[in-house]
Amino acid sequence: MSTYSLTYDEALALDAADELAPFRRLFVIPDDDLIYLDGNSLGRLPQATADRLQQAVVEDWGRGLIRGWNAGWFQSPSRIGEKIARLVGAAPGQVLLSDTTSNNLFKLVMAALAARPGRTKIVSDELNFPSDLYILQGCIHLLGGVHQLELVPARDGISVSPEDLASAIDEDTALVSLSHVAFKTGFLYDAPSVTEQAHRLGALMLWDVCHSVGALPIALDAWNADLAVGCTYKYLNGGPGSPAFLYVRQDLQGGLLSPLWGWFGQRSPFAFELDYAPAPGVGRFLASSPPILSSLAVECAVDLTLQAGIQRLRLKSISQTSYLIELFDQVLAPLGFTLGTPRDPVRRGSHVSIRHPDGYRINRALIEEMRVIPDFREPDNIRLGLAPLYTTYAEIWQGVERIRRVMAEKRYLNYTTHRLAVT
Amino acid sequence: MSTYSLTYDEALALDAADELAPFRRLFVIPDDDLIYLDGNSLGRLPQATADRLQQAVVEDWGRGLIRGWNAGWFQSPSRIGEKIARLVGAAPGQVLLSDTTSNNLFKLVMAALAARPGRTKIVSDELNFPSDLYILQGCIHLLGGVHQLELVPARDGISVSPEDLASAIDEDTALVSLSHVAFKTGFLYDAPSVTEQAHRLGALMLWDVCHSVGALPIALDAWNADLAVGCTYKYLNGGPGSPAFLYVRQDLQGGLLSPLWGWFGQRSPFAFELDYAPAPGVGRFLASSPPILSSLAVECAVDLTLQAGIQRLRLKSISQTSYLIELFDQVLAPLGFTLGTPRDPVRRGSHVSIRHPDGYRINRALIEEMRVIPDFREPDNIRLGLAPLYTTYAEIWQGVERIRRVMAEKRYLNYTTHRLAVT
Repeated sequence: MSTYSLTYDEALALDAADELAPFRRLFVIPDDDLIYLDGNSLGRLPQATADRLQQAVVEDWGRGLIRGWNAGWFQSPSRIGEKIARLVGAAPGQVLLSDTTSNNLFKLVMAALAARPGRTKIVSDELNFPSDLYILQGCIHLLGGVHQLELVPARDGISVSPEDLASAIDEDTALVSLSHVAFKTGFLYDAPSVTEQAHRLGALMLWDVCHSVGALPIALDAWNADLAVGCTYKYLNGGPGSPAFLYVRQDLQGGLLSPLWGWFGQRSPFAFELDYAPAPGVGRFLASSPPILSSLAVECAVDLTLQAGIQRLRLKSISQTSYLIELFDQVLAPLGFTLGTPRDPVRRGSHVSIRHPDGYRINRALIEEMRVIPDFREPDNIRLGLAPLYTTYAEIWQGVERIRRVMAEKRYLNYTTHRLAVT
Repeated sequence: MSTYSLTYDEALALDAADELAPFRRLFVIPDDDLIYLDGNSLGRLPQATADRLQQAVVEDWGRGLIRGWNAGWFQSPSRIGEKIARLVGAAPGQVLLSDTTSNNLFKLVMAALAARPGRTKIVSDELNFPSDLYILQGCIHLLGGVHQLELVPARDGISVSPEDLASAIDEDTALVSLSHVAFKTGFLYDAPSVTEQAHRLGALMLWDVCHSVGALPIALDAWNADLAVGCTYKYLNGGPGSPAFLYVRQDLQGGLLSPLWGWFGQRSPFAFELDYAPAPGVGRFLASSPPILSSLAVECAVDLTLQAGIQRLRLKSISQTSYLIELFDQVLAPLGFTLGTPRDPVRRGSHVSIRHPDGYRINRALIEEMRVIPDFREPDNIRLGLAPLYTTYAEIWQGVERIRRVMAEKRYLNYTTHRLAVT
């Protein structure tokens, strides 16, 4: 440990000075020695959520029974959506908690392509989450293969240059669909300028904010974004597979139609009319009964994030990812790791990817032997997610130290290169 | 009460002789005087579910964190799907817990229409749940309006005649999409013969079993059904908005493609390939991360239904709906009610609709003053759902008696005809 110029005591001092530190105590953390660096994949459990779910199950469902629908469940997609709206810079009436990210993406992409008839290009990038690309490919297939998907390359393997993106968007482009922060590299787009670029050529702009919401400021209205989707189980701590959300800008809502004509998106669901007529606003993008227990878990978690404040979270996140990169340079770069994430904090989300040819095995050793949980993304990325609501500087320091020990003690040799389902 | 030839003591005797009676004690029933006749809309909370959810939240998520995905979450759509498969008469490899009923219907209808190119008719009926009709209408819109939706009439207002249905299905029919049990009237189709009829003319057959699963035998394989969807929050007691399920017959799976190309339906999700390739089996109809907390609630509830046995549940359900209709004839018909449900138990699901011009207000009075919870469906149906896992004969007797009192004491006059959102 003598090689560190950044000492563990300094990490403790940073924690002591952290005004968000008290938020960690609002989470259920049964095991303080476990270093959890995967909040970018599944956030921790807030204590308030555990309490609320217990009540939701026993009281709202067990005692309230069907009356729960009138007592708040029916309104939950828009009620919780409006809370999320405050995290993504959206005025009321534009955000719904709904379905899954893929389902929402499908609905919005199909609506968008119908709104740009004659245009045949969809622009995305090769850093985008594969599931997003699959949905785009599926939409193209469904529409008879008329559209083409152009993936802008990431020439440095980490980020997409504004020039490359600009040259891909043209007057034939119907839709630009991008992840605000890239799932693997943590690259963060300059969203307002990209949105403006898309609009200049008449394309619609869709942002997937899965990897940014809850960790950094999003301003969908100010960017003039058209459409957005996001999940709630990462930095929002909504729980495993918790429902996703969607955003449709106010002035577009009347002109866009969901391909999924569902009961909850009907003008008057309880009239039980035999013919579909869409609800007037964003509600037309709902389909059917939301999973209430999983939805209520989202609500508590969003409340917590609102309380902390997204500007403070961003400041801490930048401070922590920068701190981690400093440690990386001192301790991990000399051990054969390369940095898979932008060094410029303005272009970086809240996770840091470190790359190593033995990344898969190193990740397994960290989980199995070292009580560190990062995650691994093919082919060689170990993602270290920093969740400013509960990650401490001490954890970051200890995490790097444990990675160092895995290498020094060659513990990764205990593992095969055979892949598990989820790591 | 002297007008009853079926006495309350006889109801108690029927409960005493009911071999399924002990199952009621496995549910959380905080208020024994509340007569809940809406299990066909939202089933009660099993005690095992309350316990399991507590564990799922605090242990699986709170302590296990991301490791939960490898510890069972990732497999939950197929693991729980296979349990449901036993309730719908499906051999392994054909059923998934997934999304919502509407989403599943959309996926299967789009796949079915693509598999019957050139055919332009979809046959359904006017008893079908409106949401199903909306999805069918949306699919038709999405495909450019080439298809027509023909709704077979219910001439008696309660059921569809085999002749009317037969005359609607022709060689231009791509898909027959019906609810096994009608949501309003409780009419139960002769599924094997309808399926055979569809197949004789080369159409695909899709069953929505929302209102039958968990209450009566379903034999998708034996019927030779092609496709099916269903929900889990009614007789299966999966909780508010719990995930739905879908069935695709084994030999069709390779030839059908979901319109929603999602990550969980990819051949190898964790390879993060940039191009979609569908999973080989029914798994291709998954899209993305399922809501785990809501899913685990389903699992406990399905276990309970499997334990009770669907044949025994059906026998009790028939006995109870018949008993209710006897009481109806004695007590309610003289008060101006008409029966909105088939009298033949072979053609009847597990709820009984009673109709009255003041139905909406009567229903409100029952809920607000009489501690009875049925539900109301436009224009004049009060649905009395009997869930054989926990409904008692005594409740049925008392329910009818309280309806009688509402009429005798004209309590419904305390309410306006103004509609609430959900009743």
